[in-house]
Formats: sequence, structure tokens, C-alpha cells
Amino acid sequence: MSVTAVPGFEAAGLACGVKPDGAPDLALVATVDRRPVAAAGVFTTNLATAAPVQISREHLADGHAAAVVLNSGNANAATGEPGRDHARRMCTATATALGCQPTDVLVCSTGLIGIPLPIAAVESGIPAAAAALAAGDAAGRRANQAMLTTDTVTKLATASAGAGTVVGGMAKGAAMLAPAMATMLAVLTTDAPATPSALQAALRDAVEVSFNTLIVDACTSTNDTVLLLARPADDRPPIDGPGPAFDKLAAAVTDVCQSLAVAMASDAEGATKLARVVVRSAPTGDDARRAARAVASSQLVQCSLYGSDPYWGRVLSELGASGVELDPERVDIAYNGITVCRDGVAAPHDTAALGDAIHRRTIEIVCDLHAGDGEAEVLFTDLTHAYIDENMGTS
Amino acid sequence: MSVTAVPGFEAAGLACGVKPDGAPDLALVATVDRRPVAAAGVFTTNLATAAPVQISREHLADGHAAAVVLNSGNANAATGEPGRDHARRMCTATATALGCQPTDVLVCSTGLIGIPLPIAAVESGIPAAAAALAAGDAAGRRANQAMLTTDTVTKLATASAGAGTVVGGMAKGAAMLAPAMATMLAVLTTDAPATPSALQAALRDAVEVSFNTLIVDACTSTNDTVLLLARPADDRPPIDGPGPAFDKLAAAVTDVCQSLAVAMASDAEGATKLARVVVRSAPTGDDARRAARAVASSQLVQCSLYGSDPYWGRVLSELGASGVELDPERVDIAYNGITVCRDGVAAPHDTAALGDAIHRRTIEIVCDLHAGDGEAEVLFTDLTHAYIDENMGTS
Repeated sequence: MSVTAVPGFEAAGLACGVKPDGAPDLALVATVDRRPVAAAGVFTTNLATAAPVQISREHLADGHAAAVVLNSGNANAATGEPGRDHARRMCTATATALGCQPTDVLVCSTGLIGIPLPIAAVESGIPAAAAALAAGDAAGRRANQAMLTTDTVTKLATASAGAGTVVGGMAKGAAMLAPAMATMLAVLTTDAPATPSALQAALRDAVEVSFNTLIVDACTSTNDTVLLLARPADDRPPIDGPGPAFDKLAAAVTDVCQSLAVAMASDAEGATKLARVVVRSAPTGDDARRAARAVASSQLVQCSLYGSDPYWGRVLSELGASGVELDPERVDIAYNGITVCRDGVAAPHDTAALGDAIHRRTIEIVCDLHAGDGEAEVLFTDLTHAYIDENMGTS
Repeated sequence: MSVTAVPGFEAAGLACGVKPDGAPDLALVATVDRRPVAAAGVFTTNLATAAPVQISREHLADGHAAAVVLNSGNANAATGEPGRDHARRMCTATATALGCQPTDVLVCSTGLIGIPLPIAAVESGIPAAAAALAAGDAAGRRANQAMLTTDTVTKLATASAGAGTVVGGMAKGAAMLAPAMATMLAVLTTDAPATPSALQAALRDAVEVSFNTLIVDACTSTNDTVLLLARPADDRPPIDGPGPAFDKLAAAVTDVCQSLAVAMASDAEGATKLARVVVRSAPTGDDARRAARAVASSQLVQCSLYGSDPYWGRVLSELGASGVELDPERVDIAYNGITVCRDGVAAPHDTAALGDAIHRRTIEIVCDLHAGDGEAEVLFTDLTHAYIDENMGTS
């Protein structure tokens, strides 16, 4: 159920001393023979990229990697050239321990921004992590635990990629859900044979319909990274472009990314509701995405959900302010299948049924704009007292 | 200290029964002789405009108005053609009571969205409000009280416009600060002689540097309206374009708008801090505004302020995600004059002094991008438990 669900990959997780409470904070994923394989990555679009993102991009330029080293507790972000030096030292220590090249190692960090990484602790932990590398569920789960921060549950997923192959993955966080101690990271593995460019295409599309449809607080972090490593199970020719084999791999990668995204939303800091806003019949698909994001990002919509209040006026107001060309007097809005607004005004409905529907933990808001055939959906959560508690201080 | 600070205008405020608790909810402002004068308006950019905004725009097309009628407790928004009919009926009832034309009356509503306006209550209150119209501070204050919703204090301001003339104003709310029961409204008056186009230019510029620099929850409401009526004190020729007289009027209008905006931010729902983010040396002025808005809109920055945590990493991350071309490694950030980040990394500072500075009620965050000469500032507040309490339910 993790990166080790795929034969050919091993993992490890342990505590090296970055987190003051002694919790696991160092994870390693590597190919069984420590040799580089085809790899792909999708990174944050934030210009203030953290040092590990900058170094991983460099090391991924050749489309291959043998290992990923991850630490939690410190994001090594806003740390300038010393931060890049620390990220490089994590790769070098890993390469030395595994017997591969430093440029074959990708690196991820997550945690507080702006604080120098305690590199000595990380360097001392890496040989132990390398020695602990193992196949199997337990090792994959330990690696996931060591990348978590304020997450309360592990986030693991697998999917079949056809022809006896599989995609496995692990993740932490949810976008800037828990940015005091977070940023989202995910590592996926597969034994499907594929070229780096095919992997990159599959991963980019999967991220678009999974992690990129998830909004907790509309913040884009400095460290967001999703990696995919492919070590073929056999010597079949690699997937190198469109076709049934690519489609099966892409579907499996998407499946794993979507499972991990739902796991993140379900575990969102302080959240009591898991919500999905669907925008239908927008002028274009981009318009639908923009409108759905406007609704999902709204503090007011999020507060209403927390209070189990089907206050559709706020949804309509956010649609109107989203910048999408629409006629408010043609908009329909439904909560969990019950239409509360039709043609932009209150619609008669069964209030008892709505009362039941709005108190569920899972809420679907469908907005029909009657303005085209663009459609999109975004996952989000409510804004709660507990979210503020978790984010009002770092110390 | 309100719209009645200007000779030539009278005001009234009373309870007509829209608010269930019997609080004042109907306000009227009119010229002393009930004759139309030059007028200007700035309205919400939300496509889902409320009915009163649509009707006020129509009635302002000729650049003149004799009165403004306002109700609180119900926004008459998302109410379609019946809503427009109600807004028109408010104008007609006011015109009948005052002896002017319905098209000389402007109308504003604020409160819950999506609920039909109890028009009978409003219509029955209008003749009483017209009979109560009076000059003087007390009447101006009563009018302001009748337009408030979750506001806890009145919001009044005046400024000298030169040559013995004055600008007076009253307001409620703060953008979508309190959108369950709100939206921002402001009415200004002056006795400076000016043409409608000069008034409109002065008002548009003033709104840009006052209400449009204020962010509480980054929501744009359906009802936002700022109106300015000018009834000349004497028969001097009207100000009709650039020049010293226009500059004095524009400065006074800006002064009043900025005072009202600060009053709104200071009274923001549940807020414990009044914050100002200043972005300096951005590539352009637009870039500076975009970057400042990104910081001010951030739930995470707002949560940090609530916790009195000078977590500059979140500010840098928002700048990086704002879409503005900048080099994070050249950015400096200071809280209340104490530089905590220089060239994108932590800067040594007096931690005791910072501890004192960050616990003040007023916080100024200065971000220097070293990327040009664009500058902008945005007022905002912290995100608190009390904000959620006020917005999680309408009933």
C-alpha cells in the first residue's frame, strides 16, 4: 500500500533529530539495486521555491533517479545558498551510503520555513536509513510516517497499471493545509516500463486532476513536490507515448494521486467537513475551474460549511466575483442533490431533507451556470476554530 | 461628523421592522429643498449585483440625485426581478414622500442575501423617515446607526474641501467583512460646487486608495456602493476638471473615504489586530498592489497575526505565489520597523524588541522587493475564532 507495493523499490523511515519531540523525520526510497531508473517530477509554481526543490529539479534534468531522501520538521526554505548547500549535502550523504551518484538522488523537505536545517542530524541519520532500507508494507509505512508533520494518519495508495504492473504512492499534507509544519509532498513508484517523457506526461496530467483540484486555504507552498520513479518489472520495451499501455499507466498514476489527494483533504487540519464543489456548464473548462476555485477558496463559504449552513447566497456571490462571464439569474445551486437556488433566486425545497443533507460530513455543492459546456470540480474543507489553533503560532 | 456636517443636507434613521430585533434599519439622506444635485457613485464589480445596485446605477445615469434611501437587515440580493421591483418601490415611496422624481432617488440595501425584502415594512417606514429628516449631528448619527449591521461603532468622517466647503460621510461594514449581515456602503455629501463628471473622478480616485486597499476576507460583495452628492454652498461656478479647486475637493473626498476605511478595519468582525502591508520597489505599481493583496488575503498570514507570531516565511511564500516577477533572495521583510528577513533569509534582530512590536494592536509589515519602483499598501486584519463564530451561521 505504499512505494514498496512495487517490486524493485525499498524504503525506510526513522528519527534523526530534526523534530524536537523525537518523532520519525527522515525517509528514504531507493531502487533495490541502487541503480538509476526513469523518473519524473512536478514542483510548486511558487517563485520562492525551497532549496530542495531547486536541487531536485537539477538532479531530475536527465530524467533519471535512483533514490529520494526526505526529511520532515524543517522545510529548508527561504534559506538561500546555505540551504542549497544543505540540500546538496543530503544528496551526497545518500549517494555515499547507497553507492550511486549524488545527481541520482532527489531531495524533499517539509516543515518550518526560514529556519536553517540541522544538517548534522540529517547527515548522521542517512547511513542508518540506508542500512534500514527494506521491501514490504512495514518499511513503506515507516517511510510515510517519517515524512508526516501535522498529518494524523498515513497516506498510502496503490493501483494496477495493467500487464501485471502496479503504481504505489505515499504523501503528506495538503497543499498549504498545514504550512507551519508542512507543504505537500508525494512519492510514487511503478514497475511499468516507461521513458522519462512518458512518465512526466502521465504525472503532469494526474497532478492536474488530483492535487491541483484540492484547496484548503488557497496557499501555494514553497516545497510542493510530486515524484514518480519507474523501475520496469521485466525487459519489455518502455512505454514512450500515446497508446493503450500509456493510458493504463496514466490511469493508475491518476488513481493513486487522487486517492492521496482525498486522504489529504480528509485529514485537513481542523476540518470537520470534506466538500466538493462542481461547476457545470461554464463557458469553458478554464472558466469552470476558476469559478470552482473561487467558491472553494472563500472563507465565507468555508465558515458556512463549518456551521452546516446551506447559505447559497455566498456561493452565488463568489461565482459573480470570480471573473467568469455568467448571468447570475441563470445559475442553479444544489447541496447534496437538493436544489436551493434556481435561476439565481431561492428555490422551494424540502427543508427537513436539506437539514439532514447539510449535516453530513461530506458535502457536494453543484453550481450550474447554463453558459456553456465547461465543467470542473475542486475538493475543499471547512474553516474551523481548530484550523486557527493549529496555524496561529509556530512555537 | 456625518452627511449632515454639510449644510444643505438632512438625514434620518429609524426602525421600520426589517431587523427582527427592532433595531434601526431605515435611513434617509436628502437635500434640504428635495431638489436633485450633482451626484456620483462607485459600485461593486461583482457580476451578481444586488437589485439596489442595478437600480441606483440606472437612476445615477443622468449624474443627479436628490436623496438616498438605505435599509439594513436584508440585502435585497439574488432576488431577481421581484428584487428590482422592490428597489424601485423604495425609490417611488421616497419620491412620493419628498416630492421629487423616483429617478432622483438612489437606493442601498445591506444584510442577508437571497431572502425577499419585506417591502411592506420598508414602504410603511419611508414616510416617517421623510418626516424625521433633520439637519445636525444627531440626525446624521441616527442615519448611520440605521445602516449598520454587525458593526459595533458608528463610522463617520468629515474633511475641509477648501474655500469654506466641507465633505461629510458615513459608512457601514468593511467589504465582505460581515457578509452574512453586511456588504459595505458609504454615503458622502459636500457643499463644494462640482459637475457630476468632476465628482465621479474625485470619488473613483478616492475609493481606489481607501476602500479598495482594505481586505478582510478577500470577498467582493453583491451590494458594495459608495455615493457622493454635492449641493453647492453658493453660486460659484462648479469645479469641472483638473485644477487647484478639484485637487482640494478630491483630497477631502479621499480623506473622508480613508477615515471611513480605517474605521471599518478597526471594527472588523472578531479582529484583534489592524494590519497594514506595504510593498515597496515592485516592478510596477500594479505588481505592488497584487503582491500586497496576496499577503493581506492569506489566511495563514492572518492566523500568524492573531497569534502575534512574526512568521515572515509565510509572507515571503505569498509574495512568491502572487504572480509578481521577483527574486525571493532579494526580498527584505520588516514588522513594525524591525527587519526579520533580509535578502530572503532570516536577519539578526533584537528578539525582545520584536516580541514587543508584534504584540501591538497595529502591525505594519513592509516588504521591499528591490525590483523596481512600484509601491502599494493594503489594510487588513487577523483571522480569529470570533470571525468564524460570526460567520458560521445565519440563524
